This record gives sequence, C-alpha cells and structure tokens, in this order.
Amino acid sequence: MKKVKLRVPATVANLVCGFDILGMAIHEPYDEMEIKLLDTPEIIIRHIDSFGLPQEPSKNVAGVVLQKIQEHLKLTKGFEAVIRKHIKPGSGLGSSAASAAGAAFGANILLKNILSKDEIIHFAMFGEELASGVRHADNIAPCIYGGITLVKSTQPIDIIPLNAPDLFVTAVHPQVEVKTSDSRQILKKSITLKSAVEQWGNIAGLVAGIQKNDFPLIGRSLNDVIIEPIRSILIPKFDEVKLKSLDLGALGGGISGSGPSIFMLAEKRDIAEKIAHLMKSVYDEIGIESYTYVSKINPTGIKIIEEA
Amino acid sequence: MKKVKLRVPATVANLVCGFDILGMAIHEPYDEMEIKLLDTPEIIIRHIDSFGLPQEPSKNVAGVVLQKIQEHLKLTKGFEAVIRKHIKPGSGLGSSAASAAGAAFGANILLKNILSKDEIIHFAMFGEELASGVRHADNIAPCIYGGITLVKSTQPIDIIPLNAPDLFVTAVHPQVEVKTSDSRQILKKSITLKSAVEQWGNIAGLVAGIQKNDFPLIGRSLNDVIIEPIRSILIPKFDEVKLKSLDLGALGGGISGSGPSIFMLAEKRDIAEKIAHLMKSVYDEIGIESYTYVSKINPTGIKIIEEA
Repeated sequence: MKKVKLRVPATVANLVCGFDILGMAIHEPYDEMEIKLLDTPEIIIRHIDSFGLPQEPSKNVAGVVLQKIQEHLKLTKGFEAVIRKHIKPGSGLGSSAASAAGAAFGANILLKNILSKDEIIHFAMFGEELASGVRHADNIAPCIYGGITLVKSTQPIDIIPLNAPDLFVTAVHPQVEVKTSDSRQILKKSITLKSAVEQWGNIAGLVAGIQKNDFPLIGRSLNDVIIEPIRSILIPKFDEVKLKSLDLGALGGGISGSGPSIFMLAEKRDIAEKIAHLMKSVYDEIGIESYTYVSKINPTGIKIIEEA
Repeated sequence: MKKVKLRVPATVANLVCGFDILGMAIHEPYDEMEIKLLDTPEIIIRHIDSFGLPQEPSKNVAGVVLQKIQEHLKLTKGFEAVIRKHIKPGSGLGSSAASAAGAAFGANILLKNILSKDEIIHFAMFGEELASGVRHADNIAPCIYGGITLVKSTQPIDIIPLNAPDLFVTAVHPQVEVKTSDSRQILKKSITLKSAVEQWGNIAGLVAGIQKNDFPLIGRSLNDVIIEPIRSILIPKFDEVKLKSLDLGALGGGISGSGPSIFMLAEKRDIAEKIAHLMKSVYDEIGIESYTYVSKINPTGIKIIEEA
C-alpha cells in the first residue's frame, strides 16, 4: 500500500467537569488527510487551505509526527501528507490533534499496522507538544479510539475507552481568539477541598452515566465548579449560550477544550439543530461571526476513506 | 406484619480516591436487628452487647431514626428495636450507618413499603447526624442499595448505584481509636489543582473499572494523592499493611471510612485470606489487638432474615 485517505474528526476535550482527563470524538467538522509512502526519505507536507499553518515539516504538527515515526523506526522511506483542514486552528475543537493523530494513524496503515494504538498516541503527542508545548492526549485519544475516552495517564500511556452514548453534539465556534496559554494561566493553582469533592462527584456521575447510557445522569453531572467559572470569562456570551441551550432542552455542555468553542449535548437532532440556531443568533447579535456544527458522538474516530 | 429480622452489613466508605462520594457494602461483619411494630407510641431500643452505646431513643442512632419516621408519618404506633451489634463502633466500617439504615429499612417493611429508597436514606441520615454531626450517606447508601454506590448529592438525595464487582474484600480493624472529627480536622482545606486532576483521573478510572468489571483498572485507580497521605498518619502500620497486601496480590485498598480499619480488594479468596493473616500478624507484632474479616462485595445490602 502506498497511499491512504482519511477522515479525521474534531474532538471535544475536558467535557466540563472532566478537565484534563476526558475527551470525545464528534463527526463534524473533520479534516481530510491523504498520506503517501515515498521511496525517498523526505517528509513533505502540503496544505490545502493552510490557515497560515507552516508547511516546513519540523514546524508542522503532522510533519513532526511523521519525522518521529521515521526516526524511531529507522525508515529509509519518507511520507507525503496532503491536508485539507476544515477544523480551524485555535477553535478548541482539536485541530492540532487531528493533524497529529491523522499523520500517525495514516503512517501506521502504510507501515502495515506496525504500531499499537498506544504507540500511535505516543507519536501523535509530539504534534501536540509542537502546537501547545504540552504532550497531552485529551484530543488525540478520542480521535484514535472514537467515542469518549479517559486519559488516566500519559506517562505511561493509560487510555480507557468509554462508551459512545447515542447523543447529538452541537458545537459553536465564535470567531474570537482565546490563547491556550492564557486560558491555562488564569486558572488558580490551588482549589478548596470542598469544591474538589463536588467536582469528583460530578466526574464519577458523568463516567457512570456514560457507561450506563443514563442520559439524565450525564446531564446533571455536566457541572464544573472549578474551571468553567474562570475560563468562561474569556468567551463572550458564554453564560447566555449555555442557559438558553439548556432552556431549549440541552442535557448540558460547556467549553470545548480551552475554548472559544462551546458544545452542548442533546438527545434529539431537532433540539441539537435548534441549539445551533440559537448559538448563531446570539453571536450574530453582537456582530461576532460564528460557525456551528451538529453531529452525533463519533463512536469510531478516524475513518479510512480510501486505500491504494 | 409485626416483626422483621434483618442482617445489616458493614460498609466501606471513601474507597481510596472516592473521598466523600463512594461506598461499598460487604458481607462481614454485620449487625443483627429485629424491629417490631408496637401498638403504643413508644420507641424502645434494646442493645445486646451494647458496646456502651446509649439506649435512650433520642440519644441512640436507631432511636432517632425511628422517632423521625414516627413523627413525619404521624404514627400512633411505636417501634421496638433489638440490636445485636457485631460491627464495632468507631471501627470505620459503618457501624452507626448500619444501625440507622437497619432501623429505617425495617420500619419501612413494617409500614408496608410506604417509603422510597431515597426516603429511607433521608431518615437514616438523622442517625449519622447524631453519631458524627454530619448528615452524610456514604455508608447508608451502600447499606440500603448494596454493591458500590456513588453519593452524587445529599441535598437533594441523588444516589447512583454502581456495579458490585465479583471481588473479595479483606478488612482489618486494629484496636486503636481514631476520632472521625480528628481525621477530618487534619485534612487541608485547600489542595493543588494538579493533585485534584490526578485524583479525578483515578476516580474516573475507578468508576469505569467498576462498571466494566475491569479488575486491573480498578487496581491501578485505587490511588489517593490527597486524603490518604494525611489520614494514614493516624493509623499505625498503615503503609506496611498496604505494601505487604499489594505484594500478596491485592488489587488495591486503603483506609476504610476515616479509619482505623483498612480494606483490601482481591480477585481470589485464598489471596484475601492471606492478606487477613498478614494484617493480623503485623498488628500482633506491635501488640495491637485486631479483628479481620474476609467476604465478598455484598451486592444486595440489608437482608431480610425473618418476617412475622
């Protein structure tokens, strides 16, 4: 095999109370990636609609991942990646994770599945390191495994795939910039034990709800008393979007990753669509352009579209 | 029906990383309780082997629960409770919860199941309030529901019954006194966000492991970076008991409730028995008397032995 075409999905990290441990794959938006095995040892990155992303391999998220794999396996062959990004960089919807996970996943197929899932995640994390300075797997893990994943540890890699409840996800990406570094810096370094206990009650409830497919339990567990009250300050109209979404029947939701995107879960497509409409109108009103996406939780993650 | 005889099990609260939210019913030790409906409005408590517990209803854990039920339902009838305690007060094995839960559960049967499970828990919590000053349900919930329970909230009561994994529990009760108030006071009021994130990764892993019956995952999630390092100081030989139990094949374990009892989980009875033997010998060596108990996780909680 010389070439593989992939559909690489967006992901929602944190999942409200699951700060730094939970992530979820969705269907929309997604990137298209084509990875080719080359007879020469070059790494070539070609972006279509690059959003200003660098194409030099060592400065490109997919590029460093492919370099690391090539290096580690002492390959004499190279890779070319053609990337059509639809997940916008800086959206909080796992754009860098998609490029990194897609590169590692695609290379592995071309190398006849030489890598385990955990090894794919290991290499993809070099892409996250380039993008944000942190080798985290919150978005990479659900991109690779699909559904909802728990990142119990990255050193060693310990990923627990959870269920993919049959729920709709509405995401809105308002066109404002929230730097991951800013949204991390404003967090308090210490918290009260009381709020931590409340938070881990919610996390335990969320994981139980996911595993039991208990949607009301998922809804009443999607509460974050620690991160959201602080980070949401950086996202215009966050409270209004959240409250109005709940009024429309959303089970719950919150900040996607470190923002500025916001996601909401709902049991029915028509509610999810109404939420998307509401989100757009809230941002239209204050003159902020926004993109909305409605899709189901994606149970399988990256999809192979074509192999040749 | 005039009389009901119950077997009311011990319970392990906290479950290491699940501080203040998780609890688990076991089979051994257990209390025997006989609750009778009286034609007169008296509340009578009779203890066999009372361990010095007061028998005056308003000062007795079972007594206040029966009083509250009588009051709330405006009953003209009364109750008599005959209690043979085997779960030692102050053991950290849910002794007060057993008396409280048994009283509420038994009264409800005599009143033809007039109360819901959550109402039984509501009334039983008055017993915990008398015993410790806190209306918590960490021990009452697993006593009533069986298995492992998540107390997501007590106001309103929101209890999530989890699975009862097919595991053995070894508990040791060393004869030292640890006051619940002391073990609560030495906790720090604030913790680092970093340690909280680690803790909730463990809690999420533990709940996922319980629901998936993934025993290795349960084992590697039974880690507490916040409470145990502080509270264990109050329990002689805690570290030695824990490390040697793990060496013998325990999946994991820690302080039961606020101590001084320690519990360990194991997949096989022979390992659980070896752990009991080890625990006893550690305390024998330093001249501290101890009691050990080996039983499975109790999937059903309080058991009706006789109705008449």
